[in-house]
Amino acid sequence: MSTKNDLLNILYDIKNGKTTPEEAVERLTYKDLGFARVDTSRSFRHRVGEVIYGESKTGEQIAKIAKTLLSNGEDSVLITRMDSDKADYVASQVEIEYDNISRAAIAGRAPQPKGKSDVLVCCAGTSDLYCAQEAMMTLKAFGCRAKLLCDVGVAGIHRLLDHADEISKARVIIAVAGMEGALASVLGGLAGCPVIAVPTSVGYGASFEGVAALLSMLNSCSGNVSVVNIDNGFGAAYIANMINNQE
Amino acid sequence: MSTKNDLLNILYDIKNGKTTPEEAVERLTYKDLGFARVDTSRSFRHRVGEVIYGESKTGEQIAKIAKTLLSNGEDSVLITRMDSDKADYVASQVEIEYDNISRAAIAGRAPQPKGKSDVLVCCAGTSDLYCAQEAMMTLKAFGCRAKLLCDVGVAGIHRLLDHADEISKARVIIAVAGMEGALASVLGGLAGCPVIAVPTSVGYGASFEGVAALLSMLNSCSGNVSVVNIDNGFGAAYIANMINNQE
Amino acid sequence: MSTKNDLLNILYDIKNGKTTPEEAVERLTYKDLGFARVDTSRSFRHRVGEVIYGESKTGEQIAKIAKTLLSNGEDSVLITRMDSDKADYVASQVEIEYDNISRAAIAGRAPQPKGKSDVLVCCAGTSDLYCAQEAMMTLKAFGCRAKLLCDVGVAGIHRLLDHADEISKARVIIAVAGMEGALASVLGGLAGCPVIAVPTSVGYGASFEGVAALLSMLNSCSGNVSVVNIDNGFGAAYIANMINNQE
Amino acid sequence: MSTKNDLLNILYDIKNGKTTPEEAVERLTYKDLGFARVDTSRSFRHRVGEVIYGESKTGEQIAKIAKTLLSNGEDSVLITRMDSDKADYVASQVEIEYDNISRAAIAGRAPQPKGKSDVLVCCAGTSDLYCAQEAMMTLKAFGCRAKLLCDVGVAGIHRLLDHADEISKARVIIAVAGMEGALASVLGGLAGCPVIAVPTSVGYGASFEGVAALLSMLNSCSGNVSVVNIDNGFGAAYIANMINNQE
Amino acid sequence: MSTKNDLLNILYDIKNGKTTPEEAVERLTYKDLGFARVDTSRSFRHRVGEVIYGESKTGEQIAKIAKTLLSNGEDSVLITRMDSDKADYVASQVEIEYDNISRAAIAGRAPQPKGKSDVLVCCAGTSDLYCAQEAMMTLKAFGCRAKLLCDVGVAGIHRLLDHADEISKARVIIAVAGMEGALASVLGGLAGCPVIAVPTSVGYGASFEGVAALLSMLNSCSGNVSVVNIDNGFGAAYIANMINNQE
Amino acid sequence: MSTKNDLLNILYDIKNGKTTPEEAVERLTYKDLGFARVDTSRSFRHRVGEVIYGESKTGEQIAKIAKTLLSNGEDSVLITRMDSDKADYVASQVEIEYDNISRAAIAGRAPQPKGKSDVLVCCAGTSDLYCAQEAMMTLKAFGCRAKLLCDVGVAGIHRLLDHADEISKARVIIAVAGMEGALASVLGGLAGCPVIAVPTSVGYGASFEGVAALLSMLNSCSGNVSVVNIDNGFGAAYIANMINNQE
Amino acid sequence: MSTKNDLLNILYDIKNGKTTPEEAVERLTYKDLGFARVDTSRSFRHRVGEVIYGESKTGEQIAKIAKTLLSNGEDSVLITRMDSDKADYVASQVEIEYDNISRAAIAGRAPQPKGKSDVLVCCAGTSDLYCAQEAMMTLKAFGCRAKLLCDVGVAGIHRLLDHADEISKARVIIAVAGMEGALASVLGGLAGCPVIAVPTSVGYGASFEGVAALLSMLNSCSGNVSVVNIDNGFGAAYIANMINNQE
Amino acid sequence: MSTKNDLLNILYDIKNGKTTPEEAVERLTYKDLGFARVDTSRSFRHRVGEVIYGESKTGEQIAKIAKTLLSNGEDSVLITRMDSDKADYVASQVEIEYDNISRAAIAGRAPQPKGKSDVLVCCAGTSDLYCAQEAMMTLKAFGCRAKLLCDVGVAGIHRLLDHADEISKARVIIAVAGMEGALASVLGGLAGCPVIAVPTSVGYGASFEGVAALLSMLNSCSGNVSVVNIDNGFGAAYIANMINNQE
Repeated sequence: MSTKNDLLNILYDIKNGKTTPEEAVERLTYKDLGFARVDTSRSFRHRVGEVIYGESKTGEQIAKIAKTLLSNGEDSVLITRMDSDKADYVASQVEIEYDNISRAAIAGRAPQPKGKSDVLVCCAGTSDLYCAQEAMMTLKAFGCRAKLLCDVGVAGIHRLLDHADEISKARVIIAVAGMEGALASVLGGLAGCPVIAVPTSVGYGASFEGVAALLSMLNSCSGNVSVVNIDNGFGAAYIANMINNQE
Repeated sequence: MSTKNDLLNILYDIKNGKTTPEEAVERLTYKDLGFARVDTSRSFRHRVGEVIYGESKTGEQIAKIAKTLLSNGEDSVLITRMDSDKADYVASQVEIEYDNISRAAIAGRAPQPKGKSDVLVCCAGTSDLYCAQEAMMTLKAFGCRAKLLCDVGVAGIHRLLDHADEISKARVIIAVAGMEGALASVLGGLAGCPVIAVPTSVGYGASFEGVAALLSMLNSCSGNVSVVNIDNGFGAAYIANMINNQE
Repeated sequence: MSTKNDLLNILYDIKNGKTTPEEAVERLTYKDLGFARVDTSRSFRHRVGEVIYGESKTGEQIAKIAKTLLSNGEDSVLITRMDSDKADYVASQVEIEYDNISRAAIAGRAPQPKGKSDVLVCCAGTSDLYCAQEAMMTLKAFGCRAKLLCDVGVAGIHRLLDHADEISKARVIIAVAGMEGALASVLGGLAGCPVIAVPTSVGYGASFEGVAALLSMLNSCSGNVSVVNIDNGFGAAYIANMINNQE
Repeated sequence: MSTKNDLLNILYDIKNGKTTPEEAVERLTYKDLGFARVDTSRSFRHRVGEVIYGESKTGEQIAKIAKTLLSNGEDSVLITRMDSDKADYVASQVEIEYDNISRAAIAGRAPQPKGKSDVLVCCAGTSDLYCAQEAMMTLKAFGCRAKLLCDVGVAGIHRLLDHADEISKARVIIAVAGMEGALASVLGGLAGCPVIAVPTSVGYGASFEGVAALLSMLNSCSGNVSVVNIDNGFGAAYIANMINNQE
Repeated sequence: MSTKNDLLNILYDIKNGKTTPEEAVERLTYKDLGFARVDTSRSFRHRVGEVIYGESKTGEQIAKIAKTLLSNGEDSVLITRMDSDKADYVASQVEIEYDNISRAAIAGRAPQPKGKSDVLVCCAGTSDLYCAQEAMMTLKAFGCRAKLLCDVGVAGIHRLLDHADEISKARVIIAVAGMEGALASVLGGLAGCPVIAVPTSVGYGASFEGVAALLSMLNSCSGNVSVVNIDNGFGAAYIANMINNQE
Repeated sequence: MSTKNDLLNILYDIKNGKTTPEEAVERLTYKDLGFARVDTSRSFRHRVGEVIYGESKTGEQIAKIAKTLLSNGEDSVLITRMDSDKADYVASQVEIEYDNISRAAIAGRAPQPKGKSDVLVCCAGTSDLYCAQEAMMTLKAFGCRAKLLCDVGVAGIHRLLDHADEISKARVIIAVAGMEGALASVLGGLAGCPVIAVPTSVGYGASFEGVAALLSMLNSCSGNVSVVNIDNGFGAAYIANMINNQE
Repeated sequence: MSTKNDLLNILYDIKNGKTTPEEAVERLTYKDLGFARVDTSRSFRHRVGEVIYGESKTGEQIAKIAKTLLSNGEDSVLITRMDSDKADYVASQVEIEYDNISRAAIAGRAPQPKGKSDVLVCCAGTSDLYCAQEAMMTLKAFGCRAKLLCDVGVAGIHRLLDHADEISKARVIIAVAGMEGALASVLGGLAGCPVIAVPTSVGYGASFEGVAALLSMLNSCSGNVSVVNIDNGFGAAYIANMINNQE
Repeated sequence: MSTKNDLLNILYDIKNGKTTPEEAVERLTYKDLGFARVDTSRSFRHRVGEVIYGESKTGEQIAKIAKTLLSNGEDSVLITRMDSDKADYVASQVEIEYDNISRAAIAGRAPQPKGKSDVLVCCAGTSDLYCAQEAMMTLKAFGCRAKLLCDVGVAGIHRLLDHADEISKARVIIAVAGMEGALASVLGGLAGCPVIAVPTSVGYGASFEGVAALLSMLNSCSGNVSVVNIDNGFGAAYIANMINNQE
């Protein structure tokens, strides 16, 4: 739920006695489940509903929050970082689409993809796929068109230059890379749009679980690169969707 | 110079014998000054021309590059991190507008501000102004509408909440903050658009010259925050301009 | 045991021959169990008895120290960081109340809660509960009034502002937050009392297991924030109790 | 200005036409000087007025903010980290008491010291005095009783134990130390009150400008130690004053 | 084996045909086992034989090296960091005394303790015992007198001051502590002999697995403190033995 | 496959209709397997074929890539960081030689060793063998002569000086060492050829999993030392082979 | 001086009484100047003579060492990191060629450039020139052919791809880059020879004076990249010369 | 002053009325100068008197403390880290011997050198001399025999091996080295006595002002190496003197 129309509907429901002001205030602010205050008004502010970060929650908590959101106006709910055993439990409570590479899921009905063009998700290596897939699932949950280019790291730059045309035409690009993270800078130079860089924790030794890629991306000599946290495919897609949907 | 029209004009000039292909290829790729290869084609790819990073260049080098760009089709050239003594020299060679808080300058004629709405530049404290001003000068050089909110840090959050309306309506926000950098997260929660966070090197002790703010921003619990390098007001504005101009 | 009266009683016991000076000196200094020197005099100096850090001790050691303290004048003993399997063993030796979210326990009878007002324990997210609960259990063990506000992180600041009144009236506040830890600064600005900030290890990537939150809190632009170690809910409560009990 | 009475006076002034609501709202929120929004309402929330951090401000800016605060109800204003040349300028605009060891100043009339007992400021070495003095000046500006113990580092622990009695009776202690910062832990063990530890940047090599002392204090084995930023004598005194004044 | 006499015996054996020069050269330099070059001449240079670091070796490799050393003149061989399962295998091949707190073992006959006085091993907390025991086992393997003081951390400094006399009379002291590692500085001040400080990895959060204690000890304000690697009880004892045996 | 001849053969195959241009272009650029773009042209650029990094790939993926490379002109394929269970699966699909110390494997027929002299691989301790073996397997896979010197760390420098002659005659040396990594500098001083240093993650405490050795090697006072990532025996051998094969 | 012939000449000089064994031993080992032991035998081991690191030496010391080397058989001596004021003094004592961008100098006669091909020194930006020039001066001092490509960073990758042919034919490449250091990886992919990467301290904020580039290069996804210390243009050239001269 | 005799003399002076108990208690504990508590009893505990760390003290303070110590029984006083301008002032107040390489001075009469053998101070390079000299001055001030070996770094190991005999016979060695600090490990292997390692801040780039050498030394594979703070030549000598003087 994300439009003024939806808000209007709630207010009319109060007027018409279909809902009480007490119920509506929860719907328009947050709902206190004891262990969590579910932000039911996020979609008014961010145009997309609250997202469930599954890492440190039990399957029971995840299912309960998802149901609360679905029964308070959201058509779909994104769940990230949910291990497969938790996913099994959640699936027994509410319908979900689960992606085991990214460990992300969509509860409810994912909206039809829209947007002026595809968000281009570029992934440096096979090892980084888990993170690129988190971005792809997020974009899907938000109803945003997207395309994935896999294994286009700079060590064999001809694999990337093959897509120079798509890159130069994109409205927003997500660059996913671990190790030295050089992909972000090269993409930044080839593209004429914002590049959101996601360092991954892929690598060993002096990669320090993504720090090398993170620093590399923060120091990009291309001016159009901004950065999110290590492995944060979700955040990159969150922003890319906002940019792609702007009118 | 940034449109297909400009490109077409060059190609017609070749056809009509006004310019040689040899001259045009430099104009369409880069010009080698010996100490630098000036990227004269940046505006075709990024819609804005090459920018001169003044920190590690002499006044002579800066002036020479600026002239090369201005005489190769750019109407204005942004120069960043240029100390006032270098600025004095450059001003003797080419007309510039110099801002001594940010140490940024615009050579040539700055374009008329345009864009669907103002880029909102929020600055946590008086000490962070140098960085917010770099963003403001960059936006000016690129012809992008912008508004500055100064001294709206979270320690006295009523100063920020006074602008909640502007914040919720913005298309893109730049958050400039040092110390603990909490401004980015609070803005992220209040806004429904991308927030580009710029950590500053303001602080002492365990701020580690901006690292505390940088980490804080990278770990923002608000999904719409992406980050650029410490003190990189220029980069944030570069991206904000791209987002604000998208159709 | 924490008053001069208790001390007087011991000294009278010596005078009256109920205890020997040798026994009393152990009671007034420490008791050597071989693997540990149990500080039986802590309550004279700190007003609360010695606390058992369970992490690196066996269930047998924990039980033995707890019994020593209970039989040397303490009414209750706090045990922190004790896994449930150790707790099972300890429970077979001495009566305990165990909280499995914080892994803390109280052996013996917890005192009646007192204090001029509630210590306010503010917890940023559901994931940080383990740490906030350690603070709550500590305050309970020390007989200190306390109230927990859960899931009041700054990404949805309306959830926090709902409690602005309680916050402005508090005598001491504990702020528990991971990720970017911005909660401490926002609370610091809203409150007129000391805020003891506890960074948690909640987060991923560049949170570096709590370092981002720790640095954020150390650099708070609010002057009334002091900080304890990452995940140290116990320490924060230890200090909050001292402040809340001052006359 | 810090009492309900002061607030009542302002409101009566409105009622009696001595001030306009427009003037009063600035007095009760903040005053926008362009380069800064002066928080004129801090004293209602924190019981002490806004403090001026002099490091990154010009003498002109400092003087202007100080005057604004003094003419809006504050009797005295604390200025920290102000170099002597700036102090000379400020002194030409408003009466100040300047301490050149800590580079702190008090503008206006410092209030009479009060409080139930002295805040005990313990300073490890002669080199750490600049920081301990910042705490002393802050306490003076806030009208709080205080006593300084200098050069009581743990390398010659008999110098500290000489004061064991004062330490055990204190209501709140500030521990200022650089190098290995062990003073905080030893004080924590001897005292029965909160110890606010201030790591200083004193040391060389692996002290990393205060990091060694900071980590040492954060890991104190004494439960009653909390920590503020490196060299932040001001913050420690800010909190100590709050604790010492509680009823 | 460690005296000139032993060397003389070998040379006489060559002269008398009891051993060949080829055999002797291995005995006097090293023996190549393929996976290791066993330093059979260490005892001539360091007065104690080679020590086996068990961490990254298999039980088979450990047993083989131990046998090689025992059959080449060593009476006893120290093995450190050997898990109990490896110890079980080694015990099936050669007689060992195993200590499961430190995971250290002595193969062969430990020599009679000697030395002018006891090496004093001071251990801050029960949690640090594993490391203090590694030092005790090392001293035992080298035939050096030693005494362990356990749980004498600075949070309850009266427990340490009880031993002030022993401390001031010692020839060499080993200080084992985790967390903030303040024990080393306090001991340094009380003692008139070298203090070898061993930081342990005990602690959590900002202890960074021993880094806080390590930095603390390196920055000790007591001049007589030197430091070895985190958890390196062996190294401290190695040096303490050398100092205690000097004539 | 690595010569112009091979390229010529492919082009003739097109001319003679044995292969289509479409098939050839894949052979001369890369082959898209969906989860990976296999770089079939690496051997034209680097003279050695693409290598499979096994760490983050499934056994199925590894086998599929290996087969693709073998069926596209490579005689052998190196696989690194492949656990034994994955190796079991791969061995069921394609013939491999597996080394369980380094976890490296060679699929297909390893070429005959050649080169002007042996690459000298010097390994500081038994614990570092896993890394030195990765270098040895890499050199074998590339058909490069090599010799391993094991357990020649600087603590017993006579073990290293025994090989001074070989060292001074080498064309290129690989120095593998953990802990303090001093071996690289000592070798650098003794040798007259490039020394490629590989820090290993062997050590504990302040070795920080190889960082101490890495920094030590980067700061070598010997001018002929360059460094690769921690544990990167493969990379060192990759470069050593290039140097050893130069004409 | 670097050949067996030179050594033979010295030995004949002894035989023929032209030099004493005492003089020759200094010539063949080192010469003790009191403040330094000049390594006069380096050229026998490394084929190039000892180099003078000027940073921490006085002009007097530099001149004295240079003369000692020149009078002991070296034709030329490289001096690095020598400020211009020291250079002025040295130039008054011995003939030098000084480069003020790199602060390097060559004393004596630089040898004729030789080598099978040019060492390719690729420099990312104008700001990195000081470091690339140090490499160029070193190669000149050692008589090695070299070519510099300036301002070929990856933000405008067409500037680099223009030289793809030269890159693919090189025998050894030096990649000099600051900021994110991506140049090394891209070059590694394009080239078929060893790439020696030199991170520079160019950048700001999270570049941490070269650490970002250093980590980036150590984690290069191209197998043929090895790394030297930050700003160590000298070391890279030292190794490149060794590789280029191998037969 | 360091013997029981001295103590006896003081006590007799009280008995005989030559001094009052009040005067004696200061002599036997410390003297409070306001800005410092001078530890006049250090020599009873450590056998050497208090040392003045000059870095953060004024010339006036240094002179005053030196005089206090000299007039309270010390024959000589060591002053470290005193810049030449402070030294000029101090020299005007009390006789000193000043060494401008180490910036150390001895006030009063340095005692006659004694000890069973020379402390061997090994210095890696000319650049490290400032630190080695601090150790030499300290040993001189304490009356300890010492010998300096300069420029014996491992890059030319023949310069070190020339002194193998002295090294193997030493009772205690100080190893001073910057950059990679390998000297400590090599010395540790050659010597049969404790090696006290002093990392220096000499180096650039990834030496991180001595951190590389510090980590290298802490991870030494030689068991007999302990470490003091970066550039702490004083501390190393303090300990070496204690070891060398033991009976």
